[in-house]
Amino acid sequence: MTAAVSTRLATPADAAHVARLLQDFNTEYEVDSPGVDVLAPRLATLLATDHTVAIVADLPDRPFVGVGLVTLRTNVWYSGLVALLDELYVVPELRSHGAGAAMLSELSTLANERGVELIEINVDEGDTDTMRFYERHGYVAAEPDTGERALYYWKEP
Amino acid sequence: MTAAVSTRLATPADAAHVARLLQDFNTEYEVDSPGVDVLAPRLATLLATDHTVAIVADLPDRPFVGVGLVTLRTNVWYSGLVALLDELYVVPELRSHGAGAAMLSELSTLANERGVELIEINVDEGDTDTMRFYERHGYVAAEPDTGERALYYWKEP
Repeated sequence: MTAAVSTRLATPADAAHVARLLQDFNTEYEVDSPGVDVLAPRLATLLATDHTVAIVADLPDRPFVGVGLVTLRTNVWYSGLVALLDELYVVPELRSHGAGAAMLSELSTLANERGVELIEINVDEGDTDTMRFYERHGYVAAEPDTGERALYYWKEP
Repeated sequence: MTAAVSTRLATPADAAHVARLLQDFNTEYEVDSPGVDVLAPRLATLLATDHTVAIVADLPDRPFVGVGLVTLRTNVWYSGLVALLDELYVVPELRSHGAGAAMLSELSTLANERGVELIEINVDEGDTDTMRFYERHGYVAAEPDTGERALYYWKEP
């Protein structure tokens, strides 16, 4: 099954499908979402830029079984870019079949092609399956020298 | 003393001073840093864009006693921008005198002016003084409905 999953970078023409997946993601996790009608045109705009990338996973007989949304930005500590994996979603019935790993692999390829020097992800504390998934793929929460982790703080101004 | 601190947005001409503060920050916390000679020209470039902002704190008789480095980006969940406070530093001898709070206030003003809908900060877990500082200013680590916090994960690709 893993071998059957292929990944690619979405184009603006895929915006409605990507919006549908992101909306389903929020619905499943009971997070407020602006809805497909808002997300689709916004994604069409964002995916036409060089700072927002959507990685999509397809099966031969079923496209759009997963999406990874990535934003790229500059950072003073690096000459290259920093990439944030904003979201990673696989449709429920196809989880644990390699689609997430395939999208992370596509993200690594993208990172190398675009000169990305750091990839970041904010992961809910206590979501041990997700934490283990990223740790298996080389992501760490702790600084190597201090063992210290960082918490994500936020505020709506 | 608080009243004497003024804040403003740095221009590219301030790049060398901002670089000096960021370098001092890293030296104090024993973090590897590329050095002022690398940071200054990089900042001169970044500060000329609309996606990197440095807030600086000045005293009447001593400019550049603190810096807050902010990056602005788009995000699919918001029609406006998301701001990340990458760094916030005050020279050691002037801490606990309001410079940090003044820079956060300047950040709120900037957020309102630029249509920022979310401000983010990654704070080291266990750095209780810093966590309390941000919490006093309205930043939260926990989602209001679930109480769940998020950890910052990273990987160099």
